[in-house]
Amino acid sequence: MGRATDRRGVLRIDLDAAGDGRGAVRRPDTLAVEEPLEIRVGAAGPGRRRPLAVTMRTPGDDLDLAIGFLLTEGLIRSTDDVHTAQLCAGAETPNTYNVVDVVLAPGVPEPTTDPSRNFYTTSSCGVCGKASIDAVRTRSLFPVSADPLTVPATLLAELPDRMRAAQRGFDRTGGLHAAGLFTPSGELVVLREDVGRHNAVDKVIGWAVRERRLPLAGYLLLVSGRASFELTQKAWMAGLPLLAAVSAPSTLAVELADEAGMTLVGFLRGRTMNVYAGPQRIAVEQPA
Amino acid sequence: MGRATDRRGVLRIDLDAAGDGRGAVRRPDTLAVEEPLEIRVGAAGPGRRRPLAVTMRTPGDDLDLAIGFLLTEGLIRSTDDVHTAQLCAGAETPNTYNVVDVVLAPGVPEPTTDPSRNFYTTSSCGVCGKASIDAVRTRSLFPVSADPLTVPATLLAELPDRMRAAQRGFDRTGGLHAAGLFTPSGELVVLREDVGRHNAVDKVIGWAVRERRLPLAGYLLLVSGRASFELTQKAWMAGLPLLAAVSAPSTLAVELADEAGMTLVGFLRGRTMNVYAGPQRIAVEQPA
Repeated sequence: MGRATDRRGVLRIDLDAAGDGRGAVRRPDTLAVEEPLEIRVGAAGPGRRRPLAVTMRTPGDDLDLAIGFLLTEGLIRSTDDVHTAQLCAGAETPNTYNVVDVVLAPGVPEPTTDPSRNFYTTSSCGVCGKASIDAVRTRSLFPVSADPLTVPATLLAELPDRMRAAQRGFDRTGGLHAAGLFTPSGELVVLREDVGRHNAVDKVIGWAVRERRLPLAGYLLLVSGRASFELTQKAWMAGLPLLAAVSAPSTLAVELADEAGMTLVGFLRGRTMNVYAGPQRIAVEQPA
Repeated sequence: MGRATDRRGVLRIDLDAAGDGRGAVRRPDTLAVEEPLEIRVGAAGPGRRRPLAVTMRTPGDDLDLAIGFLLTEGLIRSTDDVHTAQLCAGAETPNTYNVVDVVLAPGVPEPTTDPSRNFYTTSSCGVCGKASIDAVRTRSLFPVSADPLTVPATLLAELPDRMRAAQRGFDRTGGLHAAGLFTPSGELVVLREDVGRHNAVDKVIGWAVRERRLPLAGYLLLVSGRASFELTQKAWMAGLPLLAAVSAPSTLAVELADEAGMTLVGFLRGRTMNVYAGPQRIAVEQPA
């Protein structure tokens, strides 16, 4: 099993220290580990599992990553749709455990492999590998718009610091995205870190799928970076009524949140935030 | 043709202004536009172009994005391998020009669609949609390791501010990644911004492909975020000897840079930087 961080030698240059003869020194540095994970999926029975996706991820919680990915892509609806999921050896030597093998429960359809939808890849992601623009969209099972959650803005403003305090990998590397699931009272339920922000979200959602917590009605998801279309869609697929991001959202993220009836908060920093969709869920207290 | 930024109404909450009765005010905000782009590719002649990839991108320089993507994926070697590339209408109404249609030159093989390599997607990218872990790797045509480039650390330290000064989209939205191509003397040759950092790099490289500037020997590429495996690979595919990032690299980015003989700089901030690979290209002046 891989590790989330690793050490490398680095030449540290500090131009302001050049006068002391210490302008360039070799020293160890801790880096976020990035390795490929192949997700293989097949129907129940002795048939062969086929590769479904390869994602560059930080090792750890790989089963959650695979299950969260399958759920947010609309390929499974609950943990009952998975017969077994196991981390197994790839072809590499030494064994890097960079393959997750998923056997679907009886009756759950395999991912379609319509030849007309067979195409190469994109590495310029976000959403990718989809066979047409129409296919980018998945459909959530959960009526998020009816979720009665209300959160005080003062509470929301505290969440980035709470998440940051739990980000052990980021502390060591400065190179890991984070996603944190919070209760309405601001308790951090689960935090995941990854070099890929989509992976961090899939790991959180995969955990919730395994714990049979879906839909995540009444919960909040906080992400350390920007709010893209895809992260918004993943949150919707999990039934989350509120997605908050430390940085900016995109136009399409806002449009999807509007359509879903989700609340989308961006630039959640210090004592300020922007509410891009669903402001009815954010309570701002009036001065006494 | 889409725009790179768009305006939306937003509820701006400032808890410190709540006492003034201005804790929550509606105002317009400028967002980075995110829209899907479908890249279709086919052989010369009347045959049908097939969808190759859908990427979520910021509209603009879409032909460069497609060409840079094809080059960095190893599907074309130069602009001579492209017969025509045109931005055309998708199925949407109103017409959003979210499709690029590429006809390859005679003799250039179409992307393979081996059914055993036919699989769904990943949206958890980075590198994705590849049919196996082995297929993640592309091979550069260019012997980057022999590039004699040397850059003073003092010059490198100035580049983030130079790029930042040119990032008009980021100024307005706070939500766009940037990639900038610099000469060895620190002149910004081309800058591209996008909601996806991979897209920003593909747009820069696609521009260089069209301008017949490959290999980009002696040039530097600066990216606004982190240095992943995939961005490092794209830089290598374009023949760039030096990739610098404002934030952290991953382990696999460092390993690939070592293998390629590239120089990889991370945490390029203020007067400091970390050199993770190829330190011979960074000149640190000793005090007189």
